[in-house]
Amino acid sequence: MALNEFSVIDEFFKLDAAYGHPPVIGIGDDCAVLDVPADRQLAVSTDTLVEGVHFLQDSDPELLGHKVLAVNLSDLAAMGASPTWVSLAVTLPRVDRAWLAAFTKGFFSLASRYSLQLIGGDTTRGPLSVTVNIMGLLPKNQRLTRSGAREGDDIYVSGSFGNAGLGLIKAKLPEADISDIDVAAYLRPEPCVELGEALLSVATSCIDISDGLSADLNHILLASDVGARVDHSAVPLTQSVSDHVQQVGDIFWPYSTGDDYQLCFTVPSGIDLSVIEKKTSAKITKIGVIEKGCELRVVQDNGERHVLNKGYEHFS
Amino acid sequence: MALNEFSVIDEFFKLDAAYGHPPVIGIGDDCAVLDVPADRQLAVSTDTLVEGVHFLQDSDPELLGHKVLAVNLSDLAAMGASPTWVSLAVTLPRVDRAWLAAFTKGFFSLASRYSLQLIGGDTTRGPLSVTVNIMGLLPKNQRLTRSGAREGDDIYVSGSFGNAGLGLIKAKLPEADISDIDVAAYLRPEPCVELGEALLSVATSCIDISDGLSADLNHILLASDVGARVDHSAVPLTQSVSDHVQQVGDIFWPYSTGDDYQLCFTVPSGIDLSVIEKKTSAKITKIGVIEKGCELRVVQDNGERHVLNKGYEHFS
Repeated sequence: MALNEFSVIDEFFKLDAAYGHPPVIGIGDDCAVLDVPADRQLAVSTDTLVEGVHFLQDSDPELLGHKVLAVNLSDLAAMGASPTWVSLAVTLPRVDRAWLAAFTKGFFSLASRYSLQLIGGDTTRGPLSVTVNIMGLLPKNQRLTRSGAREGDDIYVSGSFGNAGLGLIKAKLPEADISDIDVAAYLRPEPCVELGEALLSVATSCIDISDGLSADLNHILLASDVGARVDHSAVPLTQSVSDHVQQVGDIFWPYSTGDDYQLCFTVPSGIDLSVIEKKTSAKITKIGVIEKGCELRVVQDNGERHVLNKGYEHFS
Repeated sequence: MALNEFSVIDEFFKLDAAYGHPPVIGIGDDCAVLDVPADRQLAVSTDTLVEGVHFLQDSDPELLGHKVLAVNLSDLAAMGASPTWVSLAVTLPRVDRAWLAAFTKGFFSLASRYSLQLIGGDTTRGPLSVTVNIMGLLPKNQRLTRSGAREGDDIYVSGSFGNAGLGLIKAKLPEADISDIDVAAYLRPEPCVELGEALLSVATSCIDISDGLSADLNHILLASDVGARVDHSAVPLTQSVSDHVQQVGDIFWPYSTGDDYQLCFTVPSGIDLSVIEKKTSAKITKIGVIEKGCELRVVQDNGERHVLNKGYEHFS
């Protein structure tokens, strides 16, 4: 049966969820209409995922539905915003009901966790890609940006690094298993929404790690006009990533792999984050301090220093 | 020279325009942050254009930059909203500086006409497609929707019909010329932003004609639970379209061609629109009346009646 755009929207993309902030006008007119409370500001972000570039060909659609939303939620988390509304533009070669059912299952399963309302989008025919536009709310004039890090601030990260990079390698193998911690980090990343919200009144700067720890921490340094010293032994790695690092013989490998969607943030020296850690169930680790200058200096236990400033580049 | 995503954004997508509603935080952080005035609501719409589906291969990038924004502005116009902010997600096979320069020239030329602020987006590698997320402002609790048409209302359209459909045919010819009215209607549509704003306090319903007059007027009828009678001889056609209709021998051809981006709207019977017509320089024509029932009935001068309910379908 041929499906037209309108029946696709009706069948797969309409929800009558009364939770969160229902739109004034939702899906089904030329625009959605939204009411932003007078004491709030709107945070907005857009990310596109393209088959063969950001996800493997013939990816599991349910996992893809989760990931495309997780990647966008991660941008809101980095700003400290609370997720509210989302638009979904899906381009796919043909209407495949099983694919759409699985994709929307993964998408809405994550969306409902944050009472996120789907308010619109577009379904078009073409090579598989998905663009999400996500919106969240912030208390007026309060937000986490990349530009607030100050000399002396402590540098923290959530979770661990390199898992998604290793997961990408593992996901290409025939025996790939989503129960593996690295494969899961790559295919089903968990955005740090609660941590971002909790950091809103504490952190001086924040970014989500999509392009790699080194590239993204460098974004903070550039925007804040500061340098950083990172203690290499403090960077949290799982056993699997430590083993891989040893195997490839490059200790900086986990600094350059992308897709981890952890948060990297700075707080004034000496601030105790144990309450936030407990409240959000996030694992957070101090990895260094903000210093004068503009470089990211990584210091090993033996005193060796390296300057890092590379990350994943879309068009390199 | 290889460009990475950040230099693409810096070179082509950053503007220091102080007009309109500057974002609190613009391009360059994880999210944009926007201040929606307390007496306004936000209108949001998303449209994707894919090469080979919504525009021809090797399309002129400057015209494409104009069109992708025009299509989205047309959705705001249909709601009566004033354009404010826009996000742009561009997926392209490789960084082509000449292409990007021309594309952004067309995009920003139209954006600046409406003091529209580019607040974010994404540039990714892949088959050429563009997704725009556009935002506009509405006075609180005032908007044009598809659902307000009432029995007895007059039905109006702006501009004329079938030009973009004929322009698509002409644009494929080697001698295609943008100075031709039909080719221009297809490649460089002009959104009816001022007309939409002016109709906000007058019209009972409104939609923009993207899928064809018959399909889109049927959306109003369905959403408003009414029928319509359209006088065929009143539907505005240019000489070029009239000639084409005669050639193909199908008087309903201009009802089913898409991409015209005119507005179709209803107003209470007898309302005088000449002031709006003069103020907005729009050509508007009464084509029929809203009636009981649920059908779109087209009546010819000889009394013949036809029921129309077809339009362009993305996945048919």
